[in-house]
Amino acid sequence: MATMREVAILAGVSTATVSHVINGSKKISAETTERVLQAVSQVNYKPNTLAKSLRMGQTHTIGVLVEDIRGLPVASIVSGISETLSRSGYKTILHDLHLLEKLYNQYEQIGAYRQRINDGLSLLQSANVDGIIYVAMHDRHLDYLFDEMETPLVFAYSHGTEKDTYVTYSNRDSAADMIRFLISKGHERIAVIAGHPHSYPTAQRLLGIQMAMQQAGLSLPQEYIRYGDWEYESGIAQTRELLKLPVRPTAIFAMNDLMAAGCMAVLTSYGCRIPEDIAVAGFDNREIAAYLQPPLTTIGLPTTQIGVQAALHIIDMINNQRVHPAREIIPCSIIERASV
Amino acid sequence: MATMREVAILAGVSTATVSHVINGSKKISAETTERVLQAVSQVNYKPNTLAKSLRMGQTHTIGVLVEDIRGLPVASIVSGISETLSRSGYKTILHDLHLLEKLYNQYEQIGAYRQRINDGLSLLQSANVDGIIYVAMHDRHLDYLFDEMETPLVFAYSHGTEKDTYVTYSNRDSAADMIRFLISKGHERIAVIAGHPHSYPTAQRLLGIQMAMQQAGLSLPQEYIRYGDWEYESGIAQTRELLKLPVRPTAIFAMNDLMAAGCMAVLTSYGCRIPEDIAVAGFDNREIAAYLQPPLTTIGLPTTQIGVQAALHIIDMINNQRVHPAREIIPCSIIERASV
Repeated sequence: MATMREVAILAGVSTATVSHVINGSKKISAETTERVLQAVSQVNYKPNTLAKSLRMGQTHTIGVLVEDIRGLPVASIVSGISETLSRSGYKTILHDLHLLEKLYNQYEQIGAYRQRINDGLSLLQSANVDGIIYVAMHDRHLDYLFDEMETPLVFAYSHGTEKDTYVTYSNRDSAADMIRFLISKGHERIAVIAGHPHSYPTAQRLLGIQMAMQQAGLSLPQEYIRYGDWEYESGIAQTRELLKLPVRPTAIFAMNDLMAAGCMAVLTSYGCRIPEDIAVAGFDNREIAAYLQPPLTTIGLPTTQIGVQAALHIIDMINNQRVHPAREIIPCSIIERASV
Repeated sequence: MATMREVAILAGVSTATVSHVINGSKKISAETTERVLQAVSQVNYKPNTLAKSLRMGQTHTIGVLVEDIRGLPVASIVSGISETLSRSGYKTILHDLHLLEKLYNQYEQIGAYRQRINDGLSLLQSANVDGIIYVAMHDRHLDYLFDEMETPLVFAYSHGTEKDTYVTYSNRDSAADMIRFLISKGHERIAVIAGHPHSYPTAQRLLGIQMAMQQAGLSLPQEYIRYGDWEYESGIAQTRELLKLPVRPTAIFAMNDLMAAGCMAVLTSYGCRIPEDIAVAGFDNREIAAYLQPPLTTIGLPTTQIGVQAALHIIDMINNQRVHPAREIIPCSIIERASV
């Protein structure tokens, strides 16, 4: 009966390496793994238990943990991930936390689902994935929610700490870009319909907006900043408030397309022409943006690209081919339509 | 050294059954599998190769092959599938064929991707899935595209033959329901903007429309049937043609929301009031339907429910718990808004 030692000699590696390959207890290069498995097969070596052999080496499977596949950016991010993984010979295991209705528009409440997230991670680990990509519905810090684990992890459309690898977009820079775009179109009195006041994107985008206004020598009066809750109705309510002001803005930048749509509905019903009287800009480039009257100028999110890069990072981490952690910020784009 | 015969005696089954459990060469009931595995463990039986043990019994993993996760109904169907599988202790492996741009609106061209589909099936089989659910972007017959295989297969949002299990909605009945709804609102001159003439849903929906008109003693003149291509622009072009007719319809039923949106844009630009002069109905209940002016009355697709049922069927097939094949048609619903 063959021993582990015979396998090691035949493969030209140490018995420790053979053990690692068979038990999956440490990542071994694909080439060495291949050589060890051939030797195992040649000498007909049988390790101690069936269970061990099930955990043998890399599975070339990546776990993708999504907050909800139905969430706005998620399907497109997963598309980028799975296409990239597939091209590199990796399979994708999807686990869905089904948080769409649970979080609704209260994305910062994710902390309440810490247990669910970690159960999802455990489930993927039990499938012997080589690495895990976490895909959020809304950009925010998430690292504090994750139990310590050895499986490589990449955050997509969300942030970890300095120790983590993540791929996302810049809320601050993209909002600043839109303000510069509005200024370039001649606007100086720009009002903002922000998202939830406690949301990370709200705070970051406001920073970018204030920065860009300041750089242009313009001011953003406090009464021009209205907080909504990311929903259509709040776009309606906050636009009504803005229209009561003695000096009306010439442009309104809503922090998402749904609030922008509500804003446009109010402007139209008040007889304000868009963009002649008041221009409107949104954020997200949802499908509705193209079908509003007039079509909405907005910010396009690099969702597919975030998925592609997250997949490349997890592959690199598994194969130790790049210095990690990596923090990658993919630029957004301004989608010019008729509302500005 | 223990033999397969000892395992069989201990488990109270034939050696053939032990072999099937170990090699995964035939589906064995969960209970028997469990008994065999316990016996294997008790006598410390080691089958011939590592490879074989990797294929041992059920993996409790279901492969989901999607035409494209970004396709309109797909994320929601996958959501229903993965939630149901997860509750039953199954994991979901997702493989995406990435056909969104390739098929564009020419869904019947799926035949050109036969190789890609079967490569996807092979990939999922190589991951030892217990069963596969195929999720289409558009309802149509697909059975002729699939190579013969032993792995249980369920079609979601698409059709197989009499031998296959599928879960979808009824194009004919849902279109007939909308016509009855329009008639109930007093409409007798109803025009139709159909999809691609060679599309299965186009043909089925037209059947349903003609059936419902006939049952109400109404006629559908040939000039009231206009073919589009599922896109917004074709809704515009075909509505312009309808408005040239000497006797205008009082209602237009577009076979999807995008063409309905194009239709509404033309009506508005011609000064037709919706619904007072001409009512408009769509199909799909895309997000835009709720944000059009006026909001669009349309047909809601039971996407999540299709996913849930597809998952339940694949679990039943794996465990031989229901007579198969099953053909399940989930009803659609009419979403009443202001456009009718």
